[in-house]
Amino acid sequence: MKLIIRKKREGSALTRAEIERWIRGALDGTIPDYQSAALLMAITIRGMDREETVALTETMLHSGSVLTWEGLGRPTVDKHSTGGVGDKVSIALAPWVAACGAVVPMIAGRGLGHTGGTLDKLEAIPGFRCCLGSAEFAAQVRKIGFAITGQSDDIAPADGKLYALRDVTATVESRPLIVASILSKKLAAGASGIVFDVKCGRGALMESQADATALARDLVDVTRLLGRKARALVTAMDQPLGFAIGNANETAEALAVLRGEGPRDLTELTQLLGSAMLILCGVARERHEAEARLERALTSGDALRRAELLIQTQGGDPRVATDAARLPRAPCEVRVLADREGWVTAIDGRALGELVIAMGGGRRVREDSVDPAVGIRLLRKEGDRVATGEALAVVEARHENPEWADLARRAYTITDKKPAAMPVLIADLGV
Amino acid sequence: MKLIIRKKREGSALTRAEIERWIRGALDGTIPDYQSAALLMAITIRGMDREETVALTETMLHSGSVLTWEGLGRPTVDKHSTGGVGDKVSIALAPWVAACGAVVPMIAGRGLGHTGGTLDKLEAIPGFRCCLGSAEFAAQVRKIGFAITGQSDDIAPADGKLYALRDVTATVESRPLIVASILSKKLAAGASGIVFDVKCGRGALMESQADATALARDLVDVTRLLGRKARALVTAMDQPLGFAIGNANETAEALAVLRGEGPRDLTELTQLLGSAMLILCGVARERHEAEARLERALTSGDALRRAELLIQTQGGDPRVATDAARLPRAPCEVRVLADREGWVTAIDGRALGELVIAMGGGRRVREDSVDPAVGIRLLRKEGDRVATGEALAVVEARHENPEWADLARRAYTITDKKPAAMPVLIADLGV
Repeated sequence: MKLIIRKKREGSALTRAEIERWIRGALDGTIPDYQSAALLMAITIRGMDREETVALTETMLHSGSVLTWEGLGRPTVDKHSTGGVGDKVSIALAPWVAACGAVVPMIAGRGLGHTGGTLDKLEAIPGFRCCLGSAEFAAQVRKIGFAITGQSDDIAPADGKLYALRDVTATVESRPLIVASILSKKLAAGASGIVFDVKCGRGALMESQADATALARDLVDVTRLLGRKARALVTAMDQPLGFAIGNANETAEALAVLRGEGPRDLTELTQLLGSAMLILCGVARERHEAEARLERALTSGDALRRAELLIQTQGGDPRVATDAARLPRAPCEVRVLADREGWVTAIDGRALGELVIAMGGGRRVREDSVDPAVGIRLLRKEGDRVATGEALAVVEARHENPEWADLARRAYTITDKKPAAMPVLIADLGV
Repeated sequence: MKLIIRKKREGSALTRAEIERWIRGALDGTIPDYQSAALLMAITIRGMDREETVALTETMLHSGSVLTWEGLGRPTVDKHSTGGVGDKVSIALAPWVAACGAVVPMIAGRGLGHTGGTLDKLEAIPGFRCCLGSAEFAAQVRKIGFAITGQSDDIAPADGKLYALRDVTATVESRPLIVASILSKKLAAGASGIVFDVKCGRGALMESQADATALARDLVDVTRLLGRKARALVTAMDQPLGFAIGNANETAEALAVLRGEGPRDLTELTQLLGSAMLILCGVARERHEAEARLERALTSGDALRRAELLIQTQGGDPRVATDAARLPRAPCEVRVLADREGWVTAIDGRALGELVIAMGGGRRVREDSVDPAVGIRLLRKEGDRVATGEALAVVEARHENPEWADLARRAYTITDKKPAAMPVLIADLGV
């Protein structure tokens, strides 16, 4: 193992056999964490070429069960987002695309750090169960055409092991490690095509357009080299997506999209990704056809009924899909007032995400429990004109704390100049 | 800690407070080994500037007891070698320099890898004890003017901790880490001046002259910045030093130097280092005076009597100083014969060092026990003319193994061209 570490330290490429030896040893405990940590740091600084990244991804992918949907006779497709504040897209997208005839075996994550997680949001629904075993997951996908589950222990266990170590050794930001981590899980879930939503902007994993595009390129290329279809959209994440930040309120907002009542940016992004998924898996031939199918599934109520079916099948109360009052709600609401007039030119999503964690709605460490009820409701977004004393947002908390409204106010930048409108879609790779 | 690791990963310099936080945490266990391992790798790749190296050295130095010889009224001086095959200099040097009036509080090491260790060599003497506690060490130095001991747990414990981790994470080769490791121990032992013997050549820690000189420069500069006197000699280590490789046989050869019967290269290097030590600590003003003092201590028998006193004081049989037959001796001797005639142009010290380990005379892992009796006796060295079938060396083993003589033969390169004579001294820094 020392020779492998030394080789990467000197900037050389590792062979597939060396990578396999490392991953096998890290998992069975014969290679101690400190050796993996040293190698992870060497990889983070020296990088990995395409061939190494493919070998690492494939090794991690095959470290556990690999699901397959062959014999299902229907196209399978999944989506992965690199995450951002207010990103509740999956909750609307999976039932919507399933309603259009694609099979969506989706493995989602929990929140850690300033961005939330789809599973935490869904668990705000009374009774909802996110931890399906592989067999239950497969059975549900076969029965109702889609599922949203957490990563069970038998899916890419090497990723769980390495991610925990990367998280505490400042090696999360390495692009090849990010690619292998994302793809090992996603490919193990067995979808034949994956659409990537690579977020770009303040508060996203990739802040610059160049970094986001490079990651998108890697994700598409490596997925294709491993025999699956792929497409990546680089999308804006300079301010939170939609109006809700939190768990219950984000689930409510995602379900509102399926009733045709969602915020414009969230609805538009969900449509963009849905369209890309339908085309990638062959349900639609091109954009207009895909958009028409999505529109039909929305207006017919099919998409909403699929969401209700999902919730019911996974043990939750399906009435939340049409009655948001059945979701938990925080007892204290404090309005955040503008201290000057002008145009909202920036909203610091990272600061608002941190605030939700401070209120108990997110995790600082993996063991933290999450309060589903707390959150922030934005009333004004970038490009809006506000008057002094006008409400910008509402802080929804478990108890009162005057600091919180102050923190939320400071997340808003208000200036005299109207900002240029930002498009949702920045780049589209792999069409 | 993550922020500290990230900072070094990005190539920034760490502050003294950050370095102190790391070392304190690594020692008290609040910073786990995998975080230290990641930081060690980042340091190995990104480097450390002079200020960071000084801060790291000082922090490690003060992680345990720091001895002081103030009030002794006599000059203290020590030597450190970066190690090489056949380097038994310390065993002759410490008593010789002590016989000239300098106080030598020497902390030596054990062998690990292809080079041996002074302590293992001394322990070949029946009864000799190398593990003096700090109090016993100090008392002996005050009483007889010198001592050679192992690093007790209370001397620079941070170095012991980090070295064990570096050894298994391919981070041994980092120059700032080497400097901090060497100096933290040496400075904690309290000598007011240190002469460094930085080996250069095949089988040395530093193979190129540029690397060896850079390390020598760092050692001298950092030692001076920490308020002690320093000088460094860069010396040749292309073939083993002297004729003996092993433990008992190297001790015997070092003691032969003090009887005026040592090999020329070993005697010359010991004199060079002794002269540098006497000048550095002020016992002699310049080279001629230092050499005259050394010569007098040798011919008068004072140096040899000091060695006998050392052995006796540390529990060993002092008669070995004049009677090498009292040292352990391996039962099987196999002659290594030249398979062609010509000039010996190279002797691969690393290969011979590895052979001694294979015979049981060194350690592969820290827990291995060492057989003091086994070794190799070189009969011919670089620049010697040999005939086909002439003996090049003798393998002294515990049992017979025909492979060993073959391995030893392959360590010799014999060609038709007489090689140029190599000087012992390559560079002299910090006079």
